[in-house]
Amino acid sequence: MRMSELSTSTGVAVPTLKFYLREGLLHAGERTSPNQAQYDEGHVERVRLVRALLEVGSLSVAQAAKVIAALDSQMPLSSVFGVAQRAVSIPASIATSDDVDADAAPSVGATLIAELCERRGWRVHSNNPGLALAARVLDTYAALGLETITTAVLEPGADAAQLVAGADLAAVASAAPDTAEMTRVVAVGTVLGDSLLAGLRRIAQEAESFRRFPLPEDTPAPAPLTAAAIAAQLDEDC
Amino acid sequence: MRMSELSTSTGVAVPTLKFYLREGLLHAGERTSPNQAQYDEGHVERVRLVRALLEVGSLSVAQAAKVIAALDSQMPLSSVFGVAQRAVSIPASIATSDDVDADAAPSVGATLIAELCERRGWRVHSNNPGLALAARVLDTYAALGLETITTAVLEPGADAAQLVAGADLAAVASAAPDTAEMTRVVAVGTVLGDSLLAGLRRIAQEAESFRRFPLPEDTPAPAPLTAAAIAAQLDEDC
Repeated sequence: MRMSELSTSTGVAVPTLKFYLREGLLHAGERTSPNQAQYDEGHVERVRLVRALLEVGSLSVAQAAKVIAALDSQMPLSSVFGVAQRAVSIPASIATSDDVDADAAPSVGATLIAELCERRGWRVHSNNPGLALAARVLDTYAALGLETITTAVLEPGADAAQLVAGADLAAVASAAPDTAEMTRVVAVGTVLGDSLLAGLRRIAQEAESFRRFPLPEDTPAPAPLTAAAIAAQLDEDC
Repeated sequence: MRMSELSTSTGVAVPTLKFYLREGLLHAGERTSPNQAQYDEGHVERVRLVRALLEVGSLSVAQAAKVIAALDSQMPLSSVFGVAQRAVSIPASIATSDDVDADAAPSVGATLIAELCERRGWRVHSNNPGLALAARVLDTYAALGLETITTAVLEPGADAAQLVAGADLAAVASAAPDTAEMTRVVAVGTVLGDSLLAGLRRIAQEAESFRRFPLPEDTPAPAPLTAAAIAAQLDEDC
């Protein structure tokens, strides 16, 4: 198919497709003349994946390019995990060079996370991006005087992470022995799984909040939820 | 204290503090002359909170301003939950006006999420931002032909969310009856909790990955993890 047809098939505008090509997010088509190239179903799939990483996974173009390169590189599964984990781990923050309490605070979170891993028998490399991410949040709670959050959430959070990680790996295993498909499950599931979990957490928080802090009796309870009501929200977000 | 001292106390540069003031992230000091104002411990605390929301929570300035306004507004807890949830729910994406498969796909995820809530007795308002977030991820898996991920992760993900939400609310309850403190726990815990969970998930993924897909025998196992090794990662990230 020509680029205009690739655009129609994927719903992605031609200038955006050209941008994907320039940024290495999309492999070149087969050139049929100096001004024209042919694209195939592999390109349609790739464009859908790129959109998913950018729009649903909220990756930057540079981060998405790294994940795509990992998919194409035939690197071992554990390395693809690492690349995908790193792509979404580093907050797109306005981080500055000094920390709130650089002398003391980092060790609080780092110590708690090291002890947690020891206690649970979690053997991981010290460059796992989750270590610093989790430690930094715990350091922040400490810097804000909110250790009460750490006390309440660290162990249940670790239980939850264990549950989800088991499911993540089960998803990968269910794609075996197709290595390319397993790699795709790793990349997409890792990047988008955070959003899924964040979404489910919000739903469960509200449900739990009603249970713990009931509304006054004269306040109407939420109407029963329908798929149509959720679909309406989806349309609004677009 | 003067602004220069507020800067020293918090490690935030004076131009950044002025920016916080302009954007409504920091309340004004007490003016002592046309060119000077005095700041107090309340300002130090607020600056730390703003940095946490921006840098660790990766909120945009506009999102952080909404959370700060909610904290200052004395609105009911459930409303602060809503504001904090919304602040981190909407991916900072390059979303376009059309979806990959706008006609059919949204209903797959919306239906799955509505059924999940029904099955688990999760009563929530249809404007809970988690509903659309989770439905969109499931729709994306479907659009990419990766329903295998949905099958493997939806129920364990919901179990995990339930665990974490229970802990989130326990943290809030542990700050009772200090309403201001409960509100702060809701805002900070909601915004930063996603990052903590994402971090723990990465650690558990690698540990689980070694268990399921053992490395060849001649590959050295990860060295035992130390707090110092994690602290070194934290320094690098800064």
